[in-house]
Formats: sequence, structure tokens, C-alpha cells
Amino acid sequence: ETPLSSPAVLRAMSSSAGPTPPYTTLAVSRPAPAVTHVEIHRPDKRNAMNKAFWREMVECFSEISEDQDCRAVVVSGAGKTFTAGIDIVDLAGEVLQPRGDDTARISYNIRKTITHFQESFSAIERCPKPVLVAIHGACVGGGVDLITACDIRLCTQDAWFQVKEVDIGLAADVGTLQRLPKVIGSRSLVNELALTARKMYADEAKSSGLVSRVFQHKAALMAGALEMAEEIAGRSPVAVQGTKINLLYSRDHSVEEGLQFMAAWNMSMLQTADLMKSAQASMEKKSPRTVAFAKL
Amino acid sequence: ETPLSSPAVLRAMSSSAGPTPPYTTLAVSRPAPAVTHVEIHRPDKRNAMNKAFWREMVECFSEISEDQDCRAVVVSGAGKTFTAGIDIVDLAGEVLQPRGDDTARISYNIRKTITHFQESFSAIERCPKPVLVAIHGACVGGGVDLITACDIRLCTQDAWFQVKEVDIGLAADVGTLQRLPKVIGSRSLVNELALTARKMYADEAKSSGLVSRVFQHKAALMAGALEMAEEIAGRSPVAVQGTKINLLYSRDHSVEEGLQFMAAWNMSMLQTADLMKSAQASMEKKSPRTVAFAKL
Amino acid sequence: ETPLSSPAVLRAMSSSAGPTPPYTTLAVSRPAPAVTHVEIHRPDKRNAMNKAFWREMVECFSEISEDQDCRAVVVSGAGKTFTAGIDIVDLAGEVLQPRGDDTARISYNIRKTITHFQESFSAIERCPKPVLVAIHGACVGGGVDLITACDIRLCTQDAWFQVKEVDIGLAADVGTLQRLPKVIGSRSLVNELALTARKMYADEAKSSGLVSRVFQHKAALMAGALEMAEEIAGRSPVAVQGTKINLLYSRDHSVEEGLQFMAAWNMSMLQTADLMKSAQASMEKKSPRTVAFAKL
Amino acid sequence: ETPLSSPAVLRAMSSSAGPTPPYTTLAVSRPAPAVTHVEIHRPDKRNAMNKAFWREMVECFSEISEDQDCRAVVVSGAGKTFTAGIDIVDLAGEVLQPRGDDTARISYNIRKTITHFQESFSAIERCPKPVLVAIHGACVGGGVDLITACDIRLCTQDAWFQVKEVDIGLAADVGTLQRLPKVIGSRSLVNELALTARKMYADEAKSSGLVSRVFQHKAALMAGALEMAEEIAGRSPVAVQGTKINLLYSRDHSVEEGLQFMAAWNMSMLQTADLMKSAQASMEKKSPRTVAFAKL
Amino acid sequence: ETPLSSPAVLRAMSSSAGPTPPYTTLAVSRPAPAVTHVEIHRPDKRNAMNKAFWREMVECFSEISEDQDCRAVVVSGAGKTFTAGIDIVDLAGEVLQPRGDDTARISYNIRKTITHFQESFSAIERCPKPVLVAIHGACVGGGVDLITACDIRLCTQDAWFQVKEVDIGLAADVGTLQRLPKVIGSRSLVNELALTARKMYADEAKSSGLVSRVFQHKAALMAGALEMAEEIAGRSPVAVQGTKINLLYSRDHSVEEGLQFMAAWNMSMLQTADLMKSAQASMEKKSPRTVAFAKL
Amino acid sequence: ETPLSSPAVLRAMSSSAGPTPPYTTLAVSRPAPAVTHVEIHRPDKRNAMNKAFWREMVECFSEISEDQDCRAVVVSGAGKTFTAGIDIVDLAGEVLQPRGDDTARISYNIRKTITHFQESFSAIERCPKPVLVAIHGACVGGGVDLITACDIRLCTQDAWFQVKEVDIGLAADVGTLQRLPKVIGSRSLVNELALTARKMYADEAKSSGLVSRVFQHKAALMAGALEMAEEIAGRSPVAVQGTKINLLYSRDHSVEEGLQFMAAWNMSMLQTADLMKSAQASMEKKSPRTVAFAKL
Repeated sequence: ETPLSSPAVLRAMSSSAGPTPPYTTLAVSRPAPAVTHVEIHRPDKRNAMNKAFWREMVECFSEISEDQDCRAVVVSGAGKTFTAGIDIVDLAGEVLQPRGDDTARISYNIRKTITHFQESFSAIERCPKPVLVAIHGACVGGGVDLITACDIRLCTQDAWFQVKEVDIGLAADVGTLQRLPKVIGSRSLVNELALTARKMYADEAKSSGLVSRVFQHKAALMAGALEMAEEIAGRSPVAVQGTKINLLYSRDHSVEEGLQFMAAWNMSMLQTADLMKSAQASMEKKSPRTVAFAKL
Repeated sequence: ETPLSSPAVLRAMSSSAGPTPPYTTLAVSRPAPAVTHVEIHRPDKRNAMNKAFWREMVECFSEISEDQDCRAVVVSGAGKTFTAGIDIVDLAGEVLQPRGDDTARISYNIRKTITHFQESFSAIERCPKPVLVAIHGACVGGGVDLITACDIRLCTQDAWFQVKEVDIGLAADVGTLQRLPKVIGSRSLVNELALTARKMYADEAKSSGLVSRVFQHKAALMAGALEMAEEIAGRSPVAVQGTKINLLYSRDHSVEEGLQFMAAWNMSMLQTADLMKSAQASMEKKSPRTVAFAKL
Repeated sequence: ETPLSSPAVLRAMSSSAGPTPPYTTLAVSRPAPAVTHVEIHRPDKRNAMNKAFWREMVECFSEISEDQDCRAVVVSGAGKTFTAGIDIVDLAGEVLQPRGDDTARISYNIRKTITHFQESFSAIERCPKPVLVAIHGACVGGGVDLITACDIRLCTQDAWFQVKEVDIGLAADVGTLQRLPKVIGSRSLVNELALTARKMYADEAKSSGLVSRVFQHKAALMAGALEMAEEIAGRSPVAVQGTKINLLYSRDHSVEEGLQFMAAWNMSMLQTADLMKSAQASMEKKSPRTVAFAKL
Repeated sequence: ETPLSSPAVLRAMSSSAGPTPPYTTLAVSRPAPAVTHVEIHRPDKRNAMNKAFWREMVECFSEISEDQDCRAVVVSGAGKTFTAGIDIVDLAGEVLQPRGDDTARISYNIRKTITHFQESFSAIERCPKPVLVAIHGACVGGGVDLITACDIRLCTQDAWFQVKEVDIGLAADVGTLQRLPKVIGSRSLVNELALTARKMYADEAKSSGLVSRVFQHKAALMAGALEMAEEIAGRSPVAVQGTKINLLYSRDHSVEEGLQFMAAWNMSMLQTADLMKSAQASMEKKSPRTVAFAKL
Repeated sequence: ETPLSSPAVLRAMSSSAGPTPPYTTLAVSRPAPAVTHVEIHRPDKRNAMNKAFWREMVECFSEISEDQDCRAVVVSGAGKTFTAGIDIVDLAGEVLQPRGDDTARISYNIRKTITHFQESFSAIERCPKPVLVAIHGACVGGGVDLITACDIRLCTQDAWFQVKEVDIGLAADVGTLQRLPKVIGSRSLVNELALTARKMYADEAKSSGLVSRVFQHKAALMAGALEMAEEIAGRSPVAVQGTKINLLYSRDHSVEEGLQFMAAWNMSMLQTADLMKSAQASMEKKSPRTVAFAKL
Repeated sequence: ETPLSSPAVLRAMSSSAGPTPPYTTLAVSRPAPAVTHVEIHRPDKRNAMNKAFWREMVECFSEISEDQDCRAVVVSGAGKTFTAGIDIVDLAGEVLQPRGDDTARISYNIRKTITHFQESFSAIERCPKPVLVAIHGACVGGGVDLITACDIRLCTQDAWFQVKEVDIGLAADVGTLQRLPKVIGSRSLVNELALTARKMYADEAKSSGLVSRVFQHKAALMAGALEMAEEIAGRSPVAVQGTKINLLYSRDHSVEEGLQFMAAWNMSMLQTADLMKSAQASMEKKSPRTVAFAKL
């Protein structure tokens, strides 16, 4: 169904031109209809997350949330590796030398900074379009915070993951400790990773459920991610976005509460024309991707 | 411990006579002492869930809840496949052409319908007797909603699962989005299944934890399910039902709250004669299945 | 990094001298700097949990919580097996013959007893230092309650696990039903184990995520556990204990609430000197274990 | 706006004919368009709640929930007093002599009975039409459970309220302990009433917020209740029922969660024709009661 | 303590110059040190809430949140009345004629709008500085949504309040149904107000707890509000903002959870220099308002 | 029903002998059968809460919890006033000069201290016997934390209450911010009190619902408190303690969850002999206080 060969995909999803203005750390493109590709683009810094990055993520995903032409998102990293995590040099001032007249005021300002950083990845969750993340090479520290806020995780055979924060003397505070245990099933493994900062490689990432697919190399990964994104983008956006929103709601509520919210949601959403169009395609044994859905 | 051979079990658990009146879609039998078998029985329609089915599930499980002679339940599907999901032809009127004088009133009625459908499977959870589900062939759409509301999932090697709803233009609203993430450990996989509607086969169902056992063919599946149901039915109903009720309570509460409820529950339940009887059997190295427990 | 050979470790972690006074069921030692080893020590009774054990666990972990020289804990069992579970002979009076003038009063007293037992293992969770548990041989009944309250689970190839309670005529009430489903990813498996009391062996314990590592024999297990405990004990206690506390908080709250608590926590914790020391070591490519951290 | 004089109202709302078949304890009538009057009707037994009453309440409010011609409900008591509470003579068997082979089984059955009783009043909450309750004379025991499940409480000057259960040797278990603290603002008063079983008279009921209006005598009370019910019944049922449903949802959730549910609810409900009709009437300075709304 | 006479205060807090650019509906001033006055300023439209207002409230309170020179806020309305509520003429397009290709898409857009409106008042809650609201004359519809999101409510003798939405054919969806029941103690009164849209006057607003003080006329109200705001602004901002943040957190959580969050909050905040300065002033019998606190 | 005259009561409840060893700040007595009187006894220090007090409260209420001869508790203050709050001189070391090698470690220790203080009052809630508090004169700072953790609040006409913490530069962290809003109905008043530290006198305490009764002077207060405590102590302890436990559970849970816990609780508690004894007394028109109940 994806007519492009892997290398062609890789070219389509590469961003030789560098970041897309006004962004300085993100290259944003549309490799296929209704699919937005967000590439972290600081390859010479191993895609380390600097001040600009944290701000631009919020802007970028706010824009994507409103972009009716986008129905699925792929996040990846430019260059040799996904991300080395926080850019400690660029952020040293904010993180290592917080301001304030006394400890209470310093603390107050630190909390603001943490909350500000947390927002950058919560923005991914708040975006109603599904976000796939394609990971190759290193995914360290803040990188794990990022990918656990995405909906679907795919990686290459050479990918590795590290909850690095404990090695730097802090408890991870941008989402890993909150989301990782709700993303994989083995609590013993979560604790081991977070407390020892050991590396986890692709095979264990797959068997533990952190990623749902492993690809041979980056070209295959990008082709696979694009293919899956197109599958999703080709389906009814009413169905797809309702699914994401309700899956997230259910994560944080009891089953009974999730069912109540679901019913309140779908009492209007079932009145979409997409239902009839999709049902018809289904009866005619056509793919939903052949249907033209109105924007949402 | 099950003296019956697999083919004999299959005969014991088949329902050539068709649905058990007054039911028109369910064949209900007692293949072993204290074990109730509920077979979805519309084989010529691939066990598609029609209007009658949704109503009869509630009635059937209400009855089972009150039936003191039943201590464990096996659910399966008659014919070639577990279930093709919702019977869209039979339900077209209700689902595709809801009534109401304006959008608000139409929505109000749709919500009633969704809630009514949700009840059909929540009835399985509310039933205090453990419910095993034995899946062979296709388990599509509403079928996934159904099996995630059961306590133990077993399947054949040829079983496959599909969260089909997104292909029909809607977000699944009868329980899959609420229960599936609490039933298997990999959130990336849950999202992938729900957003792409791809099929998942038995091996992945086992490795992801959706099912806890895979059998070669249907006869073995039914024998295995019956054997496990008898194991459960042979134990103290005070212990078994208390276990189910508290496992479900804990799913939706914090550990601390779960412990509190557990203590309030067991302060009376530990006063059962079953405790002494079971302890004695245990000390005599006898199986709890040799003990005669009073009804509950 | 652990200079000791496996047999040496085993010697270091054995407790031929028996329980450490004033304890009568626990041998407490310090096999490596900042690592406390708690060995359940009733080998002739297969480490069955008697009255003294339940009380001593609380005392021991209260003491460990306050002990600034301890930064990680390993729990294991002396002798041939981890634990046979509750010592029903010693506890028969309390459990099987509760006092009280009428059913209400008997119930009231039973609830006190259950709550008292629950406390013994909740004490492990409340202890801010990470607790690793090393399991060999049998881990039955109360043993499963115990290990699910620990942070990291490791076992030998010959270990097996059994949620035994249903065989004795009761629903497990000291934590298994509350914690096991939050510890492993497959709900079908949890239900099967709790409702049938079947044994689960090391391989399934690993693939289901109950344990995160399996070792060939007890000497390797103890060496591995000690090694991992030293890894953890060598890192910043501010980082490590903050990680444990927030991982547990997040288990019982929504992601949004977890993030809020995390920010309130770290607004002061990031002001630790450990951050700078660790960052420096990291930049110098040294292990955090080379850093001297102040006590906590 | 109500053309009837008080005595005429009282006649309209009296039920000399006794209970309305098939009910044996409830007289159900329609004293004004779209207003249903449910009168507890066992005046010679001081409206004590017997076995039939608990069952009929559920049936009656299930029916009202589905009755599109009803938009508001008034509950009151026939004869000299609102209700003396549970009919202990009629229920002695079920409550005082529960069946079961051992304490666990007796407890299990008692829990079923309590849950069954709780349902009778939760049915009032689940009914989406607002329920006003008009109380005169005594409102004792189960009567307090009942009225706290209603939406609006009105009473006569001679009304008095008593949380009687503690005097009979039990903790109130049909809703008073759960709802009373969420219905009035003073927790000290709630505790005093529940722990001492003292009577509270109309003035304190008003100043504490238990009732929102006090009337001189029963005729005035019934006229006032009917008048208020007509006010409510005359407004858009989409607006009124949405208001009740969301007020109850918000009681049991955080503000943030309540807002989310509200938005999911109103995204369809605002598409009602009632909005335009009501807005027009409002601009023309007409009462909403002059508008003809479609059924819901 | 406030040296100004009432008329002088009124002049100080009047805004004859009209809205403060860039705002078009809000006049923002600083009538006393560290006190920000936000006046809704569309007096010729009875301060009806138009499109600009909803947007400007978010901007204004975001700015106030960051403004370290502001320690307390007073909100009031210009002209004859507090506010007539939503400006239905200005918002007719958005509210009455929502866009979208089918019902699902229209609903989706309506939900966005509701969420957007809800944000305007949630911004008041998220602002860590205490917000007092001074109400005179009418406070209708959206006005009640607004004031329930403020921390302290004061009014004139001629003020009246009306939950108007049900009269326009909708359930209030900008916060009233969520916050009003958590703001006043009588649930019967809340329900009556929301279901009948009747007016509530100052006396009942006081006795029911909606407002905590009533003043004779607007000049006295503004003087009283300013006086109270100065009291608050004169205290340690570490203490004051910590109090607001924790009061709001506790509203939506159990006592136990509230205590945990409080402890995590104050473990750093107690290290403020304000503590020593305030304690010293207290021992010297000086008002905390005499202390110079650092900014926060 | 209380045969003692007020002065006699006052003598009975006075503690001229000073604190009851081993306590140094509490005088504990039994002024009537089954009623324990806990008097804060540092009259020369205006009952300020010193280090010993915080520890002794936990010990005292732990003991009361286990004392089967106690069925109700009265807390009051010796001398001229209820309590001046925290003894800042005695606690200066712990509170104002916390230890630790860096800010993180200081914070960690402060959190321990706060949690330790919070425990002192949570012990009152955890005690299953109802606790009445009788307040005269000043009730300042920590005093408000204390009384909001009690079940029933009574005061003299000269009592006044002050949430003092904000004046000392901190947000109250021992329970007031968590419990006060759940104890009185007006949120505007709660916020005003906590943010301005103004005094509230007996009349407003009564009208706002903080206290449920006001007495002329201390003798009348103590007589009234004792009388009410005897009323409670004279009723079935099964009923009384079940009521307290469930009222507290319901405060922190939804109505549905509260009902579930209630049913689990009462399924055993209704099997008490107290039920029959109380019912018999009731039918014979005797007070429950004439019944001899077994201990609990």
C-alpha cells in the first residue's frame, strides 16, 4: 500500500534543509497526505534538548492540534541518534543556578521551570491526533520522557533507552516516572531502569512492550512509521481522534468512569457522516483509506 | 483430573439443539458440576451480536449471578468462529438511524443506547462468579469488548483479534478502549491495535498477555477451559467470589483503598466454615476439589 | 565492578549465626557499604511467617527507614526456599479462632488483624529506600504478598510462585490482589493465578514481568542482587529515594496528579549538592558510585 | 402563576383512592402537566417502608425515567407524617434473621440485601428528572436516606428529622452517611445528628441548608412544591436534565473532571432547538414556560 | 488601617478612562501597592461578556500570574451592575451557529468553544494570587460562573444572583454546576437555583455562604474589598500563595492526599526568610503588613 | 439525664492534679462511664503545643483506640483558653533551624517533621471513637488544625478562632487547609479566614457551621459536652464506631464508593446482638442508654 521504497521514504522524510523556520530545533514536513513529520533537528548536538526545543515543542504541537489537514504525526530524530536528552550546557543556568531571594523563592521558580518542561511533552498528549515516535540509536533521559508521552513507539534494532536522571543526581521529573509504569507491564523492570539507569536495548524494549515493533535499520523504521501513520491518517478523523482522547481519559480513570465519558462523547460523534461512508466501504470490501472524509 | 477425553468434552460442550429457550442467541448448559457454559449461538451469522443478544447477555448473567449452583462460567462461540462482532444489519435502525426531534434529543437517545450496550458486558464483571472465555477463529469489534470484560482469556492457535471500530468510522464505545489497556501491559500495542484496526494473532495475544493460554484446536481449547473452570468451581465459593470482587475493585482504586476494602470484606468472610474445611484438606494433602462447600 | 566472586558473596550474605537480636525471624546484616540485607531466617520452618515475623517486619523496616547509612535493601530467605507463606500453626489462634461476643465484634477484631498484617508489607513500600527481593525455591501465599510490595524482583531458575490463598478457603487479603495486577501486565494471568492457585515457574515469571531477571542458582542470585543493590546504593540518595517515592505516588494517581506532585517534590530536591557532584562525575565519565554523597 | 388555591392543590395532590395499582405503597398521579406526584401511601402505618415499598420505588422511578411526558417529580407522604422509616415488623425476617450456612454466607446475603435497599434510593438519583421532596411531620431513619437522594428539599414548620439508626444498634447504611455530609455544610452538625440520633426541627433544617424552604402547613407546602415543580417542568427538558446529570457528576469528581464531562455533554446538547426557542422567548420577555418544547 | 475615605477609594478604583489598552473590556489598575484591580468595563452593555472579554480574561490573568509586583487581585464591574452575563448578540455566531460538515464535526467545534470559555475562568483559579470579587447589582449567568472561580466573594445589599442558563435552554457549562456546590453548603439551594433560575438576593447569598460579607453600597463595597486585598497583599506572598494553591488542591482531593501534597509543598517553602521576619514582627506585636517581603 | 449540676461537672472534669503521667501535657480522666476526657494541660503556657504535646497526642489516641472501656472522647483545654497554638519557643529548633547538608536534605527533614505533626491530629480521625471538642477562649493556629480533625465542635460564647499561620509567613500545614473546607459550607469564608488571619467569634462559628452548639460559659460547655458524650457512649459501640468510620470514608470518596464500602462494612456488623437489644429497647420505649452492650 505504500508505493515508496524504503530509501525513497527516507529521502522523503529527511530534512537536509535543516529546521523549519520559525523553529530552530524542529524540521516539520508533510511526507504523505495528512501526515505531519516532526523531526528533532540538532544532529550535531545529538538532538540534545535545549531551551528553544522545550518551547518549540509546545508551539509545534499546538499548531498541529489546530491543523485540520493533519491526521497523524510521526516524531523522529535527525542524524545518528534519536536524542541524547536534555542539553545540560544550554540549560545550566536555568536548572543549576535558579534565581530567588531565599530557598522558598528559588524553589518556587524551580517548580515553574519543571512545570514548563512538563508542558512540552503533555502537549503531545493533548494533541488529539495520534503521535507515532520512531526511535533509532540513543534515547536518553529527556528522550524517555518524550517517547512515553507519544501514542505508539517503534524503534530500530540498534536503539537503546536509558532513564539517565538518577545518574545526574535527580529523580526524573518531566514525565518518565509518571508515564513509564503505565506504558509497560512489568513494574520490576520499570523500577530497575529508573533506579539503576542501566541501558535497555531493542529486544527487551519489544518484549517488555515499550515499543510495539522493531525494524532492521532507520530506513525501514521510517518507512514503517510512515506506513502506519498513513493507515491511521486514512481512517475517519472522528473515529481516530475520539479513540485517542478516550484511551487517554481511561488511563487515568476507573472503567466505570471511562464508560460514562465514552457515552457522553459518542452520543454526538456517532452522528457523523463518516459512519455511513465507512460502513459502506466496509460492506464493499474497500479500505477505509479509499473514503474521502471531511476535515475535523 | 478431567476424566473426559477432548472429543468427549467437545460433545459435552456442544449445543446441537441450538439456543436454550427463552434465549434465541445463547445456548446455556452445565457441562460439569457447578460450571455453566454460555455459548453464543448464531453460527450461521458468525455469532454476530444482534438486538436479542445484547438483551439476553444481561438476563443470562443476572440469572447466573443468582444461581447458587453455578461457581464458574465458560463463554464460547458456536460454529466456525467466536464472533464477527456487532450485527450491523439487525442494529442498523438503532445505530444508524437514531430518533429524536433535534440533535440534542437524538444524542440523548444515542447515549441511552450506548449505555444499554455497555451494560451487556458490564454484567459479566458484576457477576461474582469467574468468567473464562474460550476464543477460536475471529474475535472482531464487539467481540473484543466482550472478552476484555471476562476474567480469564484462552484461545486456539487460529484465533485472531481485531479492534475493528475505527474502520467503521467510530471510536469503540462498549468497553474496549476502557478495559483493553488495563488487561494487557503494552500501551503502544493497545494504541496501535485501536488506531489501525490491524489483526492480532494468537502468538502476539499470548506474548502481550491478552490471553493466558493458547491451545492447538477448538477441542483442546474447550477441554482446557472446562478443566480450568472445574478447578475454580471446585474451590470455596467464598474464596473464589471474594477474589474476583476484590480484584475488580483494586483495578479501579489505589492500593491503599484496595487494602481497606479488602479488610472490610474479609472481616466477615474469614468466618466461613470453608476455611477450616480447606485447611484440613490442605493438611491432609487433598485437593480442595474433594471438599463439599455449602452454597453461596 | 563487584570484586567478590559468587561464593564469596553467598558467604557474605549468609547468616549462619541465625536471627539478629532482638529479631527472632530476621537476620539483618550489611554485606556492602550502604546495603542492608534482611534475611527471613526460619529455615527449618521453610521461613513460614509466624506471629513474630509480622511484627518484626514493621520494626525492621521502620528502623531501616531511619537508618541514614542504608541506601538500598535486599530481602531474601535462608535455607532451601524463600518462604512457605503464613505459619498457619503459629497463627491458628488469631486467624482461625478470633475473639468477640457476637459476629460483629469478631469481625471487628478480624479486621484489626488483617490491617495489622497488611501493615507489615506496606512498611516495605513506605520505606523510602529501594527494596530488592531475591527469591529462590518456593514463594507461596504470604510470600507473594511480600514480594509484590518490594520494588525489584529477582529469582533463581528453580523459583516458583503460588497465590495459594484460594486453596485455603479465603481471598488473599494481605496485598496480592491489590498489588499483583499493578506489578505484571497480563490481567488474564493474574486472574488465573489467583483463582486456580496454580504454580508459576521462573520462565513465566520472567516473561510476564513479575521478575526482571532470572539467575542460574542461589549464589548467582545473591551476587546479582547485591551487585544491583550496590549500583543503587552508590547513586545519590536524593535521586534514588525521590524516584521510589514518586514511582509509588504515580501508581495510585493520574498522570496529571503525578506530575503535580513531582514538581512540588523536586522544587527543593533539585537544590541538592548531589546534582552538581553527579553532573561533574558524569562529564568526567566517572561512575556516580565514585562520588561521596552526604547522608539523607 | 399557579391558578389553584392551596386547598385546591391539596385536593389535587391528595390520593383518597389509595395506592395506584400495581403499586401497593405508592400513589402516583399527574397534578399538573409534566409533573408526576409520587405519594408514599401507607398512612395507617405512618408510611413505614415495607418490603413492597423498597421494590416499588425502583419500579416507579424506572418508569418515570422513561416517561417522556414527565419533566419533574414531587415526592410526599400521605396522612399525618412523611415517614416513620423502615417497617421493622415487615422486614424483621430479612434484616434480623438473615439466612446462610455460616457467617460468611450470612454476611454475603446481608450485603445483597443492603445493596438492594441502597438501589431504591439511588434510583431517585439515576432518574434524570429533578425530584422535589415535600416533608411534613416526622422524617425518621430511612426517611432521611430517602430525602438526601432527592434534589430539592422543602418542609413544613412542624417537620422534624431524625437519623435514627444508631438508636437501633446499627450504622445507617442506605445512604444517609454518604449523602447527608454532601447535602449540608456543617460537618459538626452531621456528626452530631448521626451519632446522637437527636431530632432536628424545621428551623435548624433551614438554617443548616438541609431544606431550602419552610412552609406554614401541609397545604402550603404542597402548593409550593407543585409550583416549583411546574416552574421546572416548564423549562427545556434538555436544559433541566442536563443540569441534574451534571450537578450529580460534579458532586463526585474534581472541578477539572466535572468541566471535562460538562463539555463532552453539551457539545451535542447545545444543538437543541430549545436553545433558539428559549432565547427568542427571553428576548420577547416571555417566560420559558410559554414555550412548547419537544419531548426528551 | 486604610487611610482613604470610601469616596476616595471609589475614585481610586474607578476607571473613567475606560478599558486599559490593549484590553477592550477590562480596566486594569493598581489602587494600592501590590493590589491589582481588574474592572470589567463595558458599562453601556451592562458588562456583558463578549468575544473579546473571554480572550482578555485569560491574557489578563496570565499576566497577573507572572507579575511579581501583584499580590492580590480585586475584580469588579463598571457602571450600574456587575454583569448581565454572556453577550448573546456578539457570540450568537459562535454559540448559535457553530460550523462543521456533520453533527460530529459541529459537536467537536462546540466542545472546543466550551473548553475555551471554561479556560477564561479557570485562569482565575490557576493564578496563584488570591482573587476577591466585589459584586453590585446584577450577577447573571456567566457572572455566576465567574464569581465561583474567585477566592473571596463580597457584595452590596442590592446585589442579586441568577443561574440563568436553564431559562435559555441549556445547562450552564462554564463552571457554575461544577463550582457552586463546592462553594456553598446547601445542596438543596444549589439545585433550586440551577433548576428554576430564580434570583437570589444579598441576604440569602450571605446566609447561604455564597458571599462572606455584604456592604451597604458600592463605595463601601469597594473600600471593603480594597481593604481586604491590602490585608492579604501585606502578608508574606510565600504564605499567601501557598495557602491559595493548597486550598484549591484540597478541594479536589481526599484529606490524606491533601496532607501529602501540603508536606511536599512546605518542605521548601518553610525555608523562606519570610518566616523569620514574620515571626519577629509577631513577637514585637507588629502587623505583618509592616514587614518588607522579597518578591515572589 | 445527666444528674450532675454544671459546677459539679466542671469539678469532675477539672484536673487540678495536672497532667496524667506519663503524659506531661495531657490530663486524661473518666468523668463518666465509657467517656474519656483529654484535657490539654499547660494552662500557664496557654496550652501552647510543645514537642511533648505532639508526641503525646499520638500516644494518647492510640491508647484510647484500643481501650474497650472508652466509647466517646471529650477534648478541652485547661485554664483560661483552649490553646494559643504551636509553642514556637519550644519548637524553634525543629521548625526554624532544620538540619541537613544541603537544601534538599533540609527539605527532606522538614517534610518528615510536617508529616510527624500531621500524624498527631490524623490520630484523632483514625481513633474509631467519636471525639467531641469543647472550645473556650482562644483557638489559634494549630488549635484550628486540631479541632477540624475532631468529629463534633462545641464552644463558649467567648470563644474565637484564628487561622494564624499566614501571619507567621507560612501556609498552614497541619490540616486546616485540608479539613476546614470540608467542615464548613462557605468557601468564601474559609478563604477569607485563611488568607487574612482574621478572628472569627462564636456567633459566626455557629452560623457558618464550624461549631454545632454555643454555650454561655465554660461550666455549661463542659456539662453540655459531657452530656452529649454520654449520649453517644450509651449507644451501641458497633453502631457508633461504624458511623464514624463510614462518615470519614464518605468524606473522601464518591457516593457510589461510599455505598459500596458501607455495604461491605455492615454485612458483618448487622449480625451484632446490639441490634436486637436496641430494637427491643426501642419497642419498649426505653432509651438505648439503658441497654448493656458488650465491649468492642
